[in-house]
Amino acid sequence: MDLNNLLKNSLTKVDDEILKRLNATVPLLSKIGSHLIKVKGKRIRPLLTLAMSAQLNDFGRNPILLATAVEFIHTATLLHDDVVDQSNLRRGIKTANVVWGNEACVLAGDFLFAQSFDLMVETNSLKALSVLAQASCKITQGEFLQMQISNNPDTKINDYLEVIGGKTAQLFGASAQAGAIVAEGTLEQVKAAFDYGFNIGLAFQIIDDVMDYSVTKKSMGKDQGDDFKLGKTTLPVILAWERSDDSEKQFWLKTLKELKQNETDFKKSCEILEKYSIIDECKIIANDFINKAIISLDQFTENNYKKALLELANNSLTRTN
Amino acid sequence: MDLNNLLKNSLTKVDDEILKRLNATVPLLSKIGSHLIKVKGKRIRPLLTLAMSAQLNDFGRNPILLATAVEFIHTATLLHDDVVDQSNLRRGIKTANVVWGNEACVLAGDFLFAQSFDLMVETNSLKALSVLAQASCKITQGEFLQMQISNNPDTKINDYLEVIGGKTAQLFGASAQAGAIVAEGTLEQVKAAFDYGFNIGLAFQIIDDVMDYSVTKKSMGKDQGDDFKLGKTTLPVILAWERSDDSEKQFWLKTLKELKQNETDFKKSCEILEKYSIIDECKIIANDFINKAIISLDQFTENNYKKALLELANNSLTRTN
Repeated sequence: MDLNNLLKNSLTKVDDEILKRLNATVPLLSKIGSHLIKVKGKRIRPLLTLAMSAQLNDFGRNPILLATAVEFIHTATLLHDDVVDQSNLRRGIKTANVVWGNEACVLAGDFLFAQSFDLMVETNSLKALSVLAQASCKITQGEFLQMQISNNPDTKINDYLEVIGGKTAQLFGASAQAGAIVAEGTLEQVKAAFDYGFNIGLAFQIIDDVMDYSVTKKSMGKDQGDDFKLGKTTLPVILAWERSDDSEKQFWLKTLKELKQNETDFKKSCEILEKYSIIDECKIIANDFINKAIISLDQFTENNYKKALLELANNSLTRTN
Repeated sequence: MDLNNLLKNSLTKVDDEILKRLNATVPLLSKIGSHLIKVKGKRIRPLLTLAMSAQLNDFGRNPILLATAVEFIHTATLLHDDVVDQSNLRRGIKTANVVWGNEACVLAGDFLFAQSFDLMVETNSLKALSVLAQASCKITQGEFLQMQISNNPDTKINDYLEVIGGKTAQLFGASAQAGAIVAEGTLEQVKAAFDYGFNIGLAFQIIDDVMDYSVTKKSMGKDQGDDFKLGKTTLPVILAWERSDDSEKQFWLKTLKELKQNETDFKKSCEILEKYSIIDECKIIANDFINKAIISLDQFTENNYKKALLELANNSLTRTN
């Protein structure tokens, strides 16, 4: 059984909590909320919280509250990202900023963020709250770093890892850690929960960045070539830059730095990646993080939740959306 | 002695804390932070926190942390407001979005907001944290309502009061209340602290809205006529609409609803306000809230801080920036 099935009841409670919180407020906010629920992603962050609590035998209300809180934090960052990136589509559906405008989306993000802290307060766990507050700081720090390396294919891998560590992996780590904290795991288990989530988060983001360039996949979550169009500096580009000859480097500078792109350029970028087997190389790097995540599970006793967390890790590499 | 002088040492500590938190982060964020410090407003929210703690005899570290947190929340909303309003000037200085762009300002706001919760966690007061988390929710709800009444001079006064209650007065109230909570005031004092701050906040916002139209004042904090240009529905406009004859109503609809404005329209709007003594009427309404704030001070024992809070209330009506 995968985590989604094992935690079906809890996930339904999280959905109920999300709707309850949104409906209690102004109509426009509630509409934006429903839209986001409809677009509903994998709910991987709440799953991490619920799974870590569950494997420590806590099926109470606190994990539900925290799982709702981490989904709100995540959704808030998505809303603000879409405004900042001026995206049009996410997971194949029009982004909220296109439907309701930037103003409403900035405010809706702020509301979800504030509401997430209100949820955390209800758990009475200052420790869990602290972990998620710090993760929230690191998300924005990661996004600032991302701005600094953007449009620059000549970026060091470590800078990229710092970016995705901040913008993605910290919240994965904190989501898992908060679940272990409220379930009163040992210090080692709390640390292991963070390590598991953090490393899964790194792998998750690398695969996400890879998927923007892997043209063979169908049913893509986001518009393919989005990162390329914005000149984002992701792992495929960084690795390709290192291998590229002079004329290929000129191509990357023209398309990603100067953002001078014509219709065939995205196809050409994919061809360069294929020439140097960049996608495979990215997957090897992602796999290293997955292995680290798996090792951290040693701190937990054997049960169905641990098995499912192992399965989640093993499936991360081959996900298609 | 006014609050600024009485609490000079504590305010310096708040400034130090602000700089410490900003400098520990990415350079761009630290630059935006320094800019905001330079533009430094009246620091009225941190003053409310510090004053309420001080009048209950708490001069420790918790009030400093909370005062920093409320200034961060306030600054975060300013950054996001400037992005949303596409403002160019605040307090006579270029806004951060003009200097660094919308992306950096959305992120900087998010960072300050996250950092504020990190500060609150350090106080170990879930109660104070809860009050400020809820105020943060209400700020965005107030701003959503503001969107809904914008460009509509035919708005009820109560809707306007709900907007400014949310977007401004809640944080004033919560700032004062949090100060009373960490200083271990009685339940009555904690409630009175909120009431004081909330009512001062209402008066403060009304005066702010009035100042956008009172052309005789020099040294304005914001560009005069800004609200008019954006078609904002503020108290002067609402009261003027109620008195206006048909041709004046046409004028308000053309300028505020359709946003068709020519160079002399702002001057004309001020003339209509003068014709119906709207500014005086606004001040009478603001004064009612000031009186409520003053009455709530009855819950506190006589000391210099209470005297200064009384003075702050009495001076609210005549402030010039």
